Amino acid sequence: MCELLGMSANVPTDICFSFSGLIKRGGETGPHKDGWGITFYEGKGCRSFKDPKPSCQSRVAKLVKDYPIKSTAVISHIRQANRGGVSLENTHPFTRELWGQNWTYAHNGQLTGYEKLALGRATPVGQTDSERAFCWIINKLQQDYQSEPTDMLTVFKEIASYADELRQLGVFNMLLSNGQYVMAYCTNNLHWITRRAPFGKAQLIDEELTVNFSEETSDSDIVTVIATRPLTSDEQWNKMQPGEFCVFHFGERIL
Amino acid sequence: MCELLGMSANVPTDICFSFSGLIKRGGETGPHKDGWGITFYEGKGCRSFKDPKPSCQSRVAKLVKDYPIKSTAVISHIRQANRGGVSLENTHPFTRELWGQNWTYAHNGQLTGYEKLALGRATPVGQTDSERAFCWIINKLQQDYQSEPTDMLTVFKEIASYADELRQLGVFNMLLSNGQYVMAYCTNNLHWITRRAPFGKAQLIDEELTVNFSEETSDSDIVTVIATRPLTSDEQWNKMQPGEFCVFHFGERIL
Repeated sequence: MCELLGMSANVPTDICFSFSGLIKRGGETGPHKDGWGITFYEGKGCRSFKDPKPSCQSRVAKLVKDYPIKSTAVISHIRQANRGGVSLENTHPFTRELWGQNWTYAHNGQLTGYEKLALGRATPVGQTDSERAFCWIINKLQQDYQSEPTDMLTVFKEIASYADELRQLGVFNMLLSNGQYVMAYCTNNLHWITRRAPFGKAQLIDEELTVNFSEETSDSDIVTVIATRPLTSDEQWNKMQPGEFCVFHFGERIL
Repeated sequence: MCELLGMSANVPTDICFSFSGLIKRGGETGPHKDGWGITFYEGKGCRSFKDPKPSCQSRVAKLVKDYPIKSTAVISHIRQANRGGVSLENTHPFTRELWGQNWTYAHNGQLTGYEKLALGRATPVGQTDSERAFCWIINKLQQDYQSEPTDMLTVFKEIASYADELRQLGVFNMLLSNGQYVMAYCTNNLHWITRRAPFGKAQLIDEELTVNFSEETSDSDIVTVIATRPLTSDEQWNKMQPGEFCVFHFGERIL
C-alpha cells in the first residue's frame, strides 16, 4: 500500500507542513520506503520531484520540505511497492498531456486483471497496475473528447464512472489533477479537510510540529488537503466512503 | 537565445561539473535568466528539475549542482525568453510519452510561422515555438509508427528530416532523447566532446573549477557532452555544422 497527499487552494500555498508529516511515513513512522514523488502546478505548468529512495532519507525530499514552493494544486505519493519493482519509472505521480493540459495522477491500492485494460494513445512506461489504469483513463477521455471539453464537471463525473470500473478490479484510491481541479476517488482510505478563516493551530501526527495557520494565511484563503490518513491530531477530517468522489476547484469542493 | 546541455554515457555518470558551468550562464556569466531545466534518465524513467527563476539564483539548481544524480542520458536548458512568457509551462525541457517511452526535448533558437505547424495527438501546454515544434515532431512519429519501431536508427534519420523542415522556419538547435539515445541537431551553435581513457583534467570556462576526470571515472567509461558553446577551455570540442545531426548511444556516436 501507499499513501496519497493532495492539495487544492485558491491562492498559491506551500505544502511544507503536510509534506513534513507524509515523508516521515516513508520509512520512519510508516513502511512506505519504495520511493516518493510530488507534483506542483504553477499556472498551466507543473513540476515533479521524485525519488525511488525512501522519502525519510531523500535529499530531494528534504529540499521540498524546506523550500516553500507555492502552488494551487499538488499531488503527492509515497510508495510501498506491490506491482512493479522499485524504480524511477514506477514512481508516482504520473503525468500525461491531454488537450494541452498536464494531467497528474497517483494511486493507492492494488488491482488484479489490470493487464486486460485496453491500451491506446497513452502507453505505460513502467510496470505498475497504477500507471496502466491511468493510461486507460486518459485513453477513454481522449476517445470521448478530441479537444478540451467546455464542461469539466461532466468530465469528472465520467472519470468517476471509469474509477468505478477500476474499483471492480481491487482497491482504487486515486488523486487526479489538471492543475485547475483536484479529484479524489475513494475505495477504502481517503480523508480530506478544508481550512478557511477563522484559522487555528494544528499538530502533526507523525512529527513534533505545530503550525498556526492564522499566522501563515490571510482571511480569504481556502485550502483543502486530502490524505490517505489524517495528518493532524487536533482537526476534524472528513472520511470518504467507498465509491465516493470529490472534486475541488481552487480549494472549494464543487462535486 | 538559450543554451543547451546534453550528456550520453555508457555508465551512470553525474553531470555536476558541466552543469556548474552552465548555470553560471543563467544570469551571471550569460544573459539566460528566464528559467532553466534538466532531465535525468534512470532506466526507463526520467525526472526533471525545473525553475522559471534564473539558474544562478535557483535553490533547486543548487541542489542539482551539489547532488550527484547519476544518469546515462541528460538534457538541460537555460532560457532567454523570446516566444512565450517566463513561466513554468514555457520552461524546457519538454517531455512527452510516445510508444511507452519518455521523450525529452530542448530547443535553442527562434522560429517564425510556427503557428502553422499542424497539431495532433500531442498539444502544447505553453506558448513557445519550441514546444509547438516538439509536438509536431511527436505527432509525425506517432503517425509514422503506431508502436515502438524496431529500427531506431531509421527513426532518428526521419527526425533529422523533420528538423530540416523546422530549420526552414529559423534557428533550430535541438537536443532530444528517449533515454537510450541522445540526438543533437544543429543550425548554428552546437558542440560536443567524447571523453574516454586516458582521461585528463579540464578547466571550466565559466567558473574557477577544474576536474580531474581520471579520479572520477574508470577506464571503460565513455561520456559524451553536448553544449551550445564549449564548457571547458583546455579540451578540443567538435563544432557541428548547419544541418548536421549526431546520435549518441550510451556515449558513442552512432550516427
